[in-house]
Amino acid sequence: MPSAFLKHPFMSQSALAACDEDAMVRAMLAFELALADVQEASGALPAGTSQQMRAQLEDASFDIAEMAEGIASGGNVAIPFVKQSRALLADGLKRYWHQGATSQDVVDSALMLLLKPRLAALDSLLLRCRSAAIDLMNTHSNTPMVGRTLMQQALPITFGVKVSHWAVGLEQARRRLGDIELPVQFGGAVGVHSGRDALGLEWMDALAEKLGLAAPVLPWHTDRYPIHALGTALDAVAGAAEKLALDVSLLTQTEVGEVAEPSAPGMGESSSMPHKRNPVRSALIRGAARQVHGHASVLLNATAQPLERGLGEWHAEWAPLMESVLLVEGALEQVAVLLEGLEVYPDNMWRNLAATGGGIMAEPVARLLTPALGVDNAKALSAAAAETSRRESRHYSDVLIEVLAGHSEANGTIDNDSLRKACDPALYLGSSVAQVKRARTWLES
Amino acid sequence: MPSAFLKHPFMSQSALAACDEDAMVRAMLAFELALADVQEASGALPAGTSQQMRAQLEDASFDIAEMAEGIASGGNVAIPFVKQSRALLADGLKRYWHQGATSQDVVDSALMLLLKPRLAALDSLLLRCRSAAIDLMNTHSNTPMVGRTLMQQALPITFGVKVSHWAVGLEQARRRLGDIELPVQFGGAVGVHSGRDALGLEWMDALAEKLGLAAPVLPWHTDRYPIHALGTALDAVAGAAEKLALDVSLLTQTEVGEVAEPSAPGMGESSSMPHKRNPVRSALIRGAARQVHGHASVLLNATAQPLERGLGEWHAEWAPLMESVLLVEGALEQVAVLLEGLEVYPDNMWRNLAATGGGIMAEPVARLLTPALGVDNAKALSAAAAETSRRESRHYSDVLIEVLAGHSEANGTIDNDSLRKACDPALYLGSSVAQVKRARTWLES
Amino acid sequence: MPSAFLKHPFMSQSALAACDEDAMVRAMLAFELALADVQEASGALPAGTSQQMRAQLEDASFDIAEMAEGIASGGNVAIPFVKQSRALLADGLKRYWHQGATSQDVVDSALMLLLKPRLAALDSLLLRCRSAAIDLMNTHSNTPMVGRTLMQQALPITFGVKVSHWAVGLEQARRRLGDIELPVQFGGAVGVHSGRDALGLEWMDALAEKLGLAAPVLPWHTDRYPIHALGTALDAVAGAAEKLALDVSLLTQTEVGEVAEPSAPGMGESSSMPHKRNPVRSALIRGAARQVHGHASVLLNATAQPLERGLGEWHAEWAPLMESVLLVEGALEQVAVLLEGLEVYPDNMWRNLAATGGGIMAEPVARLLTPALGVDNAKALSAAAAETSRRESRHYSDVLIEVLAGHSEANGTIDNDSLRKACDPALYLGSSVAQVKRARTWLES
Amino acid sequence: MPSAFLKHPFMSQSALAACDEDAMVRAMLAFELALADVQEASGALPAGTSQQMRAQLEDASFDIAEMAEGIASGGNVAIPFVKQSRALLADGLKRYWHQGATSQDVVDSALMLLLKPRLAALDSLLLRCRSAAIDLMNTHSNTPMVGRTLMQQALPITFGVKVSHWAVGLEQARRRLGDIELPVQFGGAVGVHSGRDALGLEWMDALAEKLGLAAPVLPWHTDRYPIHALGTALDAVAGAAEKLALDVSLLTQTEVGEVAEPSAPGMGESSSMPHKRNPVRSALIRGAARQVHGHASVLLNATAQPLERGLGEWHAEWAPLMESVLLVEGALEQVAVLLEGLEVYPDNMWRNLAATGGGIMAEPVARLLTPALGVDNAKALSAAAAETSRRESRHYSDVLIEVLAGHSEANGTIDNDSLRKACDPALYLGSSVAQVKRARTWLES
Repeated sequence: MPSAFLKHPFMSQSALAACDEDAMVRAMLAFELALADVQEASGALPAGTSQQMRAQLEDASFDIAEMAEGIASGGNVAIPFVKQSRALLADGLKRYWHQGATSQDVVDSALMLLLKPRLAALDSLLLRCRSAAIDLMNTHSNTPMVGRTLMQQALPITFGVKVSHWAVGLEQARRRLGDIELPVQFGGAVGVHSGRDALGLEWMDALAEKLGLAAPVLPWHTDRYPIHALGTALDAVAGAAEKLALDVSLLTQTEVGEVAEPSAPGMGESSSMPHKRNPVRSALIRGAARQVHGHASVLLNATAQPLERGLGEWHAEWAPLMESVLLVEGALEQVAVLLEGLEVYPDNMWRNLAATGGGIMAEPVARLLTPALGVDNAKALSAAAAETSRRESRHYSDVLIEVLAGHSEANGTIDNDSLRKACDPALYLGSSVAQVKRARTWLES
Repeated sequence: MPSAFLKHPFMSQSALAACDEDAMVRAMLAFELALADVQEASGALPAGTSQQMRAQLEDASFDIAEMAEGIASGGNVAIPFVKQSRALLADGLKRYWHQGATSQDVVDSALMLLLKPRLAALDSLLLRCRSAAIDLMNTHSNTPMVGRTLMQQALPITFGVKVSHWAVGLEQARRRLGDIELPVQFGGAVGVHSGRDALGLEWMDALAEKLGLAAPVLPWHTDRYPIHALGTALDAVAGAAEKLALDVSLLTQTEVGEVAEPSAPGMGESSSMPHKRNPVRSALIRGAARQVHGHASVLLNATAQPLERGLGEWHAEWAPLMESVLLVEGALEQVAVLLEGLEVYPDNMWRNLAATGGGIMAEPVARLLTPALGVDNAKALSAAAAETSRRESRHYSDVLIEVLAGHSEANGTIDNDSLRKACDPALYLGSSVAQVKRARTWLES
Repeated sequence: MPSAFLKHPFMSQSALAACDEDAMVRAMLAFELALADVQEASGALPAGTSQQMRAQLEDASFDIAEMAEGIASGGNVAIPFVKQSRALLADGLKRYWHQGATSQDVVDSALMLLLKPRLAALDSLLLRCRSAAIDLMNTHSNTPMVGRTLMQQALPITFGVKVSHWAVGLEQARRRLGDIELPVQFGGAVGVHSGRDALGLEWMDALAEKLGLAAPVLPWHTDRYPIHALGTALDAVAGAAEKLALDVSLLTQTEVGEVAEPSAPGMGESSSMPHKRNPVRSALIRGAARQVHGHASVLLNATAQPLERGLGEWHAEWAPLMESVLLVEGALEQVAVLLEGLEVYPDNMWRNLAATGGGIMAEPVARLLTPALGVDNAKALSAAAAETSRRESRHYSDVLIEVLAGHSEANGTIDNDSLRKACDPALYLGSSVAQVKRARTWLES
Repeated sequence: MPSAFLKHPFMSQSALAACDEDAMVRAMLAFELALADVQEASGALPAGTSQQMRAQLEDASFDIAEMAEGIASGGNVAIPFVKQSRALLADGLKRYWHQGATSQDVVDSALMLLLKPRLAALDSLLLRCRSAAIDLMNTHSNTPMVGRTLMQQALPITFGVKVSHWAVGLEQARRRLGDIELPVQFGGAVGVHSGRDALGLEWMDALAEKLGLAAPVLPWHTDRYPIHALGTALDAVAGAAEKLALDVSLLTQTEVGEVAEPSAPGMGESSSMPHKRNPVRSALIRGAARQVHGHASVLLNATAQPLERGLGEWHAEWAPLMESVLLVEGALEQVAVLLEGLEVYPDNMWRNLAATGGGIMAEPVARLLTPALGVDNAKALSAAAAETSRRESRHYSDVLIEVLAGHSEANGTIDNDSLRKACDPALYLGSSVAQVKRARTWLES
């Protein structure tokens, strides 16, 4: 696969660098050495054993290619890793290596170790996004724009309130992710610490502590709840990022032009079309999110695993899980840049607010006219005037003033100032400001 | 769709009865009446208005067919519902109906109202499952069976520990579901309470309280986190149920015969094959879970919704969400019956423990022989004896005693009693008992 | 489930009416009666048997509710159906009923019988769409509009070529669907016609012919290729419809306004916002398509079924398959109406072509200037003039003429007429017309 | 991502080697050079141009890392590739490079070029599988085994007929894959060959011929039918492989033991459990197939792409499509080995046929007894005798002979030889042999 061309562009480059084969070897090594520590501490290994193992292996170089090749016969990387690492140990230590552990213990725990700094990175990125979003909310708390439902202009909102909805979406996903536990896996061949009896659970707990992972209730070799919880929490982040990118894509359309992705040399440019600036970051975010949904679908369908070890179901989890986190991290890097540098065009927002003539203000105008004209007449008059306004490119309030002046019943009942106010989108923002305030309080709580 | 034949069999019949069109009308009505209550309490409606509305509508009969037909032109049921209900009100009340609300407010909130008792029902079912599982765990805490990895016999476990893994899986999903909030939706046409200003958020909070729903941070018309959280939490329950059904399916195979679904007249019988008893409940659970995964996939892909209202994305949520809960409830009803009435055959577990001769005990035997023979010889001898035992259908310990007696080095080093113990699966259960205890403590916490 | 409110709006109402429980009973009956016919013809039943069965059952009334209730114990509807239908037969005929068949034979074949007229209906709808699309292509073969990539204005195309891409997409899906075979299923208890020997295959072929279904190579009880082929072919149709609805949704945005869904009384109207016309049909199409993708995901994950009968995998197919067809039919009904009545606004297309000043024509202008100015200068000049044109709302060619007149090198090298032509989107339509022609030839082939 | 450990084990290693970044560069180069050829042939480029380009670029070395890095600003690899390749050309040639093409043309066509040899490889593998399957079918055309429905023993089949179902499943998928067209993509910036008019379609057709790809009806930049067709056809292959792997997994269970994966040194061995041989190949196949389903889900959800270029939807296709083919190829390599070397144990099949006493033969026995005893008595007697046989481990026919001898009505009505025959699974194989024959004919057609 030309991954560098087709997949990595959606991913965090720094995360990719931190999650290669070598990192996986280090994580498996960390698991096995911690196990030796724990076993030695409980008296199951001669004093000094784990120290010697560490000394002999910590700087050893592993043959990654051979390890990869060794997977074919056993079906997972722990088998060739254990073989290769054991071969590097002094003879007297070999028998103490990987004691009481099974391949799944090594792989699952190593993946959790790889994931831990990634979840921390996601949290940092989400905090960075939150902070940038709050700045945008503050700046645009009173910037009117049109709200659109089913992609049609509806009624005014503010750009601030739109950002606050993005921010709440991202923060909800951040909090869910923050509740995710990354548990150590340690159960031995069939998950019951065969031959170790109750010591097994003690070691499991001690391992969790030593590795900085959570201690599960029980080994979870075929209780894949932790994977389900993590995979769907990652997908929730992807969904929140995707929502923002979708909005940016729509608002940045040539005919809308209310925002633009941060400009940068060469960014989004088209060599043949000088007027064009493509929303490349949004495209990458949306491309990433869709791939995450596919990975999540694999994880959901693999939650039920047979008896004491999956037969393909477990194996199917590895790549979708790891790639999900790399894709989400990549997407969030883009979201952070978007929120920190988004170009906002209040003038274009005003232009679009006026695009329907007064159409989008016909509802408040009708409300104003209702006492004088009754509901139905008020609606009809306000709508007709809006159409005139749009067709003749005249200001809605001017048309209304003219129409009302010639209206037998309405004439004189409403002063022009009230009418102008009813036509002003900036005076019809509902709870926009209050929502920004409420969101800020919650975000900062 | 012949739903009664092809879909309802997977669902809870009582839940289905509680979630029909009439219930949806009642839920939409509850939302609108609560809105009137709240608006009246804040002085926005004349005193007595909501009381009169309730009186005029609570027992009114709605034309469901007309309402359904009316969906085509507006795209959701709230539009014809509001029209029909308004027509039923006295003229003076009509203008106060559905004030400040939009279709999405009505539909989203009504769905939450329909879901609330369903989540309560799921919780009850999961508690019933938990209780039944604890009974099974207690009864079979010491019942040896073989653990199987990649569906191959591996080493002994107990049936109790297997049940405790099922129980932990279900309980994790229950706790996640218990954390789910069902928020009211109220934002008006574009989600900012146009024309109501800060009152909008007050009404939203008051509505939540009156309807027994959660108050969201902000209206969530296009922040679909609540749907994502709920849909994936339901899927987690489905996954835990599916795991149990998969294990039961495997353990109930003719050649394995370790458990059977509870027998009942006609249940799982084949008219033409008298010896057969199909695991029908497991099939229905597994069928339901797979459909839930598909629904979840729709929800994940619809999380990102454009601007202030989805254009198909919102609409695509309705059926997958509601059907997920009905399928999960149906699956849990089956799981509860399975756990309460599962037929367990410890004799067959013993028979299967012996199926490999001593194969599954070769590992502890080799460990016993290692001091005398060295690792390699010990492994070779124990494996060879297991093969003899399997081929000649003799007891593994008898073969071993004979072999060792003729062995120059080993003869006399290990007493027969130790050897018999090493061959006894019931003495090699690892942390099985400890795990059951630990699970019980956690389950009851 | 309030299906009439939440699910049926996406479906074809006439298809729904044709696919209820009663229709399923008729289909199962058709299968069993055809089986009796075939068996009688081969001498396995006394002469006249099938005729009597038909007479006794064809107008019999079945208890649908009882049948539905009977599913719980056997896991599929064929069991209670066979029981109920056998009970309606005269005693002497009972033993000849459902001979050599198994439940899966009945259910799978009945589903194929229900699907057959649906696929015919899809084909008709797709032909109707094709015809309407060709009309639109002809009418707008030369109607310029701007092409948009990554939702940014790029270069001119025609509306005709856009429609031809929709039409080709739909027709490709139609042809794939037309290749789908709906095979009869007949294999008996384990798929090998136990007790019938080679007669089994003969009966299978004869059944296929009698029922108007395809004869499979072998019984396909756990070779679910036919379901996979059908489910993904339906999804392809959904995808083609969704593409069209997505384009319509984008082109119908208030700020774009190039097309509108056909207007009809009440259609897409908003009671509170008189200016608004929601693209309701597009929303319903997109909502339907997303649900079809979820159903397809269930089918893909259920393709592999164990041994001689699925244990949940088979059961999980029923609803997703049937609902997919109903959703696709519903979506196509909407697409047909869209294509037949789409409102097209060439004026707005022209307005949008001018929105960037000459930005979208800067590329052909630069090409014209290159011989005189060199590539880089030509590009810079054409882009700068476009920016001036946009800012000052002047015609691009006027700006260019002015700029070139004052340009030392370029002055006089290009006549104004050539310049005006290079600025004219209607003269820069590439292969648009040729593509429409080519598409038409292919569509009509 | 530690891909070598977590993803590549499921993939074809030779395919991986053939599909790296360098191969993608070569494919993009092939596209651009063919374009120059075609343009030169049509007189649009000076004679000799494409020859010089080829000379200057064919052996040039590209900076893959720089190219990968360059993706961030434009969102796809074609942009930095075109830049880098143009820089390598002599100045006079630069302007002729990539003329009339857009990034999507390059990427889509290059992917098709990468895929073409992969589809050929899949076809070869599937033919290899077919051939191996036919050998197995021939060998085991008469090898009785028990058929299992819902994973319960049902009635006898043959191992040959089971293999023929696998073979038909794989061959159906092969034929579907064989119908897939890999079209060239060439449409220019907005898909209408801007500035080239009707020449565009001519070049497109000529490009297709030169590159050995299919000529599409129209450019398919946002008509993603070809991707949908390919992605779902690949998934169908995955599903057929997964079905076989699921059956092998079930039949190879310790308690069943009817087949085993081909043994090879180290293959599937467990270091600690000498008796164990894990079905590693089946696990890898099943793991691969599940990932393919997830990728297909991404493709289905990305079929509808906006206007003239996807905004994330296109980008989301790349990895899922390429990885699907690599995973399917990997799975098929395993399937081929399985079919060529599967260890089949007819003795164990016989043992399992006897596991229910005569349970699985109770149906034919009841049929034999019916004329003498009536349906109900016949069924009751045959079932009771089967239960006695199972409990007392006596041969079913012996029990029946004894029971009938003591039966007032039945005594003497049925001779012992008929009875023994009715109890013999090998005489109750239905159409098994005929199906194998029919399958063979079809497979070889």
